[in-house]
Amino acid sequence: MATIIINFKAYREGSGERAVALAKAVREVAEKADFYMAVAPSFLDISDILRNVEIDVFAQHTDAVGYGSNTGRIPPEMLKEKGIRGSLINHSERRLRLADIEFLVSRFRELGLTSVVCTNNVATTQAAAAFSPDYVAIEPPELIGSGIPVSKAEPEVVENSVKAAKKMDSEIRVLCGAGIATYEDVVAAMDLGADGVLLASGVVKAKDQKKALEELVGLR
Amino acid sequence: MATIIINFKAYREGSGERAVALAKAVREVAEKADFYMAVAPSFLDISDILRNVEIDVFAQHTDAVGYGSNTGRIPPEMLKEKGIRGSLINHSERRLRLADIEFLVSRFRELGLTSVVCTNNVATTQAAAAFSPDYVAIEPPELIGSGIPVSKAEPEVVENSVKAAKKMDSEIRVLCGAGIATYEDVVAAMDLGADGVLLASGVVKAKDQKKALEELVGLR
Amino acid sequence: MATIIINFKAYREGSGERAVALAKAVREVAEKADFYMAVAPSFLDISDILRNVEIDVFAQHTDAVGYGSNTGRIPPEMLKEKGIRGSLINHSERRLRLADIEFLVSRFRELGLTSVVCTNNVATTQAAAAFSPDYVAIEPPELIGSGIPVSKAEPEVVENSVKAAKKMDSEIRVLCGAGIATYEDVVAAMDLGADGVLLASGVVKAKDQKKALEELVGLR
Amino acid sequence: MATIIINFKAYREGSGERAVALAKAVREVAEKADFYMAVAPSFLDISDILRNVEIDVFAQHTDAVGYGSNTGRIPPEMLKEKGIRGSLINHSERRLRLADIEFLVSRFRELGLTSVVCTNNVATTQAAAAFSPDYVAIEPPELIGSGIPVSKAEPEVVENSVKAAKKMDSEIRVLCGAGIATYEDVVAAMDLGADGVLLASGVVKAKDQKKALEELVGLR
Repeated sequence: MATIIINFKAYREGSGERAVALAKAVREVAEKADFYMAVAPSFLDISDILRNVEIDVFAQHTDAVGYGSNTGRIPPEMLKEKGIRGSLINHSERRLRLADIEFLVSRFRELGLTSVVCTNNVATTQAAAAFSPDYVAIEPPELIGSGIPVSKAEPEVVENSVKAAKKMDSEIRVLCGAGIATYEDVVAAMDLGADGVLLASGVVKAKDQKKALEELVGLR
Repeated sequence: MATIIINFKAYREGSGERAVALAKAVREVAEKADFYMAVAPSFLDISDILRNVEIDVFAQHTDAVGYGSNTGRIPPEMLKEKGIRGSLINHSERRLRLADIEFLVSRFRELGLTSVVCTNNVATTQAAAAFSPDYVAIEPPELIGSGIPVSKAEPEVVENSVKAAKKMDSEIRVLCGAGIATYEDVVAAMDLGADGVLLASGVVKAKDQKKALEELVGLR
Repeated sequence: MATIIINFKAYREGSGERAVALAKAVREVAEKADFYMAVAPSFLDISDILRNVEIDVFAQHTDAVGYGSNTGRIPPEMLKEKGIRGSLINHSERRLRLADIEFLVSRFRELGLTSVVCTNNVATTQAAAAFSPDYVAIEPPELIGSGIPVSKAEPEVVENSVKAAKKMDSEIRVLCGAGIATYEDVVAAMDLGADGVLLASGVVKAKDQKKALEELVGLR
Repeated sequence: MATIIINFKAYREGSGERAVALAKAVREVAEKADFYMAVAPSFLDISDILRNVEIDVFAQHTDAVGYGSNTGRIPPEMLKEKGIRGSLINHSERRLRLADIEFLVSRFRELGLTSVVCTNNVATTQAAAAFSPDYVAIEPPELIGSGIPVSKAEPEVVENSVKAAKKMDSEIRVLCGAGIATYEDVVAAMDLGADGVLLASGVVKAKDQKKALEELVGLR
């Protein structure tokens, strides 16, 4: 089953009470659709969503530290303890150092957390795949929030990223992101070999979020 | 009334269910003591504490951004919406750039959030005071977690920080931190002109947190 | 005598052999003009300029470290040893943490180096002035490289920055930057109380750098 | 021919006039030894070494930017223009983000510069090798400056790093570093499959640098 992860970013439309409502909408659509759907809300909203909605929750970022004197940081162990499923790692808006990505993927594996490493091109996808994360998510930075789907604008980037990742480790699942908004975009991504999509504004900033979700999974 | 803020850092002893229990202990001690007491837990635990404990909650860090495409970041507006009282800014374990400190203090003032800017010596205390935050908290880095109270080891740093801050703006309240663990330390800080203390390990990593809190406020 | 510092940034037009040629042009113009003129070239070009041109050279950045295991970093002591006059600190394209700015200004004073702390508004100018650097250089980020002189666009920012800095320490010299290109801009800055200007593109990216320099100091 | 790169770090013993003298010593030893030897001095000393010593010079760091408004940054193009051979990239004391490492290796290839990507374990070595740099240099951080040679303390790390890198691209040359000081260490590294070593304190902080260099290459 293909994967769809919705990144709420720090959008006002995906914060506070609206975060819980949006997570509920994702849950309802997921029940009717043929996709595994998960959400990545703000740290501050994770607990409220976990309490109110039966859905897999990802953090948007995790810090490459352990428990300890790390004011303002979130170690992997905290995700585990809270019942969080995993985390985006190295999102284009929160890039990490190579050694820290490796630390996090490795620690996630030990803790049974799901790692989703974001990358920006074929070469960084292959490099990230060397760590055998659960997912790599390729998002060409110039297309993020552009409304132009990567699957159309740069199909060869998606195709070659899939090849590069699976060559390193055939079990890695590859998501693609940037500009994805419609079912057509999702299908195009799958046709290029992707195992799903990571998206944000296409749903979170839509006038009607529920409708956007239904369109995304082909229910409209 | 003097202020005591307990920073839970990313300590295991102050995370998850233990964070809520510790916040409750702080609340119970505060009711019997002559101090204004607040807590600064992990982002992930803030919501659970706000729901279960009647206490002022501070974030340990806030990012110098607004709502928007800022994956993994926490803008000031999110704190406001969640009912969070304010935030530590520029903690020694999460140092910020000068321009970002100014942005945050300024935005907090507009939003009615309480700013607690951490500093490391007299000169940076005076510089931070130029922004007129609600609090500055002076913590000599070499004493953090040392068990040696700043009020004993470097009384002149506390005294001169108080003078430097109040000269810039007489309404700024000055906290001191680093090595504080006992009522004697708190009284010594007040005698040097401080309006309270910011502390972490002295309480969070104590064998008996409740007992440590009672000792801190002079109830034992 | 008023000060003019030319920041070569990482402009191609101010790199390599062109850096030495530009420094020579600044030197020649300075001899005829009524200004103290200095240059801030790339780390890589500093030695060649010092060897070939009799002019005060500033680094564009210095790291808040000492001699030691700091690969890729430039400690203040190295500037001193090379015969470099001082450094820009906290330029808008190389922002520093509050504690690091204080460390650098303090260390520069001990070593007899000249500190030029860049700031972005009145509040950060006052904060930086708390460290008593030799210069503060106020540059509203939105005007940098804009061609619109800060002295015209936001005269009150220059005026209030001068007041805020001199109130903290009357000996601090205040430069203003962003959009400065003509003698008229320089005079306007001085009329607002500034002790000089910091500029970059107006000279370095000019078609005829020598002519731009002559215009800047009123020789044309 | 095996490679030896000497990193001068920001050591006082490898700065200013001492940097030029040390580079000369390396050059003299290289003439008698069976190694390709190069130096990586501070940005500030590169020009003086290039002018006075016939030796390949590497930067200790390069920034992932191009020519332009990048105050305090060193773009790859500047290295090229100065006649610098290449650069260390991602040294443990100057870690970079994954996307920036990829950008630099890729840009170095276009410009004909030699890339030496530093890594901390087998997994990051394999990831870096995905970019096909000229060299990867594996240095377990816990052994840097320890005096305990990696080739003895963790021979399997060197061996597996060599395998991981060559599997990705058989032409990549693998250096190892951390704790290397004697000819015996160098030979041990080569026996494990390494193509050379990267070292710093073992030479730069030696009482007699020339003697240390001669010992390193087996001339004593």
